[in-house]
Amino acid sequence: MAAWGERLAGVRGVLLDISGVLYDGGEGGGAAIAGSVEAVARLKRSRLKVRFCTNESQKSRADLVGLLQWLGFDVSEGEVTAPAPAACLILKQRGLRPHLLVHDGVRSEFDQIDTSNPNCVVIADAGEGFSYQNMNKAFQVLMELENPVLFSLGKGRYYKETSGLMLDVGPYMKALEYACGIKAEVVGKPSPEFFKSALQEMGVEAHEAIMIGDDIVGDVGGAQRCGMRALQVRTGKFRPSDEHHPEVKADGYVDNLAEAVGLLLQHADK
Amino acid sequence: MAAWGERLAGVRGVLLDISGVLYDGGEGGGAAIAGSVEAVARLKRSRLKVRFCTNESQKSRADLVGLLQWLGFDVSEGEVTAPAPAACLILKQRGLRPHLLVHDGVRSEFDQIDTSNPNCVVIADAGEGFSYQNMNKAFQVLMELENPVLFSLGKGRYYKETSGLMLDVGPYMKALEYACGIKAEVVGKPSPEFFKSALQEMGVEAHEAIMIGDDIVGDVGGAQRCGMRALQVRTGKFRPSDEHHPEVKADGYVDNLAEAVGLLLQHADK
Repeated sequence: MAAWGERLAGVRGVLLDISGVLYDGGEGGGAAIAGSVEAVARLKRSRLKVRFCTNESQKSRADLVGLLQWLGFDVSEGEVTAPAPAACLILKQRGLRPHLLVHDGVRSEFDQIDTSNPNCVVIADAGEGFSYQNMNKAFQVLMELENPVLFSLGKGRYYKETSGLMLDVGPYMKALEYACGIKAEVVGKPSPEFFKSALQEMGVEAHEAIMIGDDIVGDVGGAQRCGMRALQVRTGKFRPSDEHHPEVKADGYVDNLAEAVGLLLQHADK
Repeated sequence: MAAWGERLAGVRGVLLDISGVLYDGGEGGGAAIAGSVEAVARLKRSRLKVRFCTNESQKSRADLVGLLQWLGFDVSEGEVTAPAPAACLILKQRGLRPHLLVHDGVRSEFDQIDTSNPNCVVIADAGEGFSYQNMNKAFQVLMELENPVLFSLGKGRYYKETSGLMLDVGPYMKALEYACGIKAEVVGKPSPEFFKSALQEMGVEAHEAIMIGDDIVGDVGGAQRCGMRALQVRTGKFRPSDEHHPEVKADGYVDNLAEAVGLLLQHADK
């Protein structure tokens, strides 16, 4: 593999995944990953542009930022690209009224959306909300529509909490796709539209940007397909087999965000 | 389409699906489908051999037969091919110890199976048992295995209860497949092994047998792939679009079991 100097040359902007890179969720809000608070601070003191690009869909953007600040991170709501606000934009543009199968923590994001007489379904990481009854209700709404439309806020397989691996929204998206014989529209990583909006908000071209994430497919593969570079951290949901993934090869693997930022500050923007 | 006489010539044995053909499940046990009790009785008085071939995995075979008898059907346990007993056979043959994600109603079928220190997962139609917590537990068990093995008792998309369409085990099988990056082994229809064991128990060759079911893919398509003929009834989960299914064409569509039996008694075994 080429030297880091070559791999990171010309990077002007950094997209940071949040869960598994900045912190691991869990009991009592979760815990910052060692070195990440200081790494974000160093990055923001540098000349590199920074934006947070998350598939978090259990919490509103305000709650997520509140939690991160409480954990010590320098981050504000305006710096975060998240799927729920992106979904609201699409629903408004297309005049769609969703049935929501989402976590109570993110429901406030949809306050301005008409949910009466639904003509589509939006699912997000609902956690315990993925009861049989709630899944069956979403299924029945879809089956009653002439043209069933299903939005999924991300399609991650699982994520890591301090207590262990947890099913993400992706498996439930697959369940509804199979039950109804349809294909969901994904809002969030790895959808190219989602990465592009994050790049636009950061004001950096894809070839000048690098994604740092713990998900080899959603973060690394997705960003690379948009023309970005991408590093995988060995924190969060990382598993050793990711480094031999049959389809996706990161531009680099690093132990954690602190190592990634150290390398970026040494080699990027040159 | 050929005349019924031609389509049903030489039939010696009849495999009957249960849910959606004999009765619709629901509150208070459900309700027999009009004409089905008498149709089964006529069939059993005829020279045709009869066997019941179900993917029912919420109830033990004993409970299912008890319910059917209570609804007026002439059926005994020994006449029913069901996935839970078939799964137990496989588990024993391969020395596997399952983690069970199944309905309490079917748990007794696994009484003789060692479930300590599990090295595979068995899922069945767990209904309300498909909570997030239970799904996550099954997922975690699979992720901890070096060679994760998942058995699914059937892979139906949904079935019909008196109160409406209900998600079946298939969507949850797809969810775990996606979450773990694996492929489940299906025990039940449309698995060829399952149909073959039902034929063997009936003592009839595939080309002399006909399946009657409400599931265009699981019943009709599955039976045809085994060399049987198959009729779809317009009861249970039948939807008008099934008659224009892109991949499966039944040998005939009938309003209900009563019509099917009328045609069989008129034309079969000639």
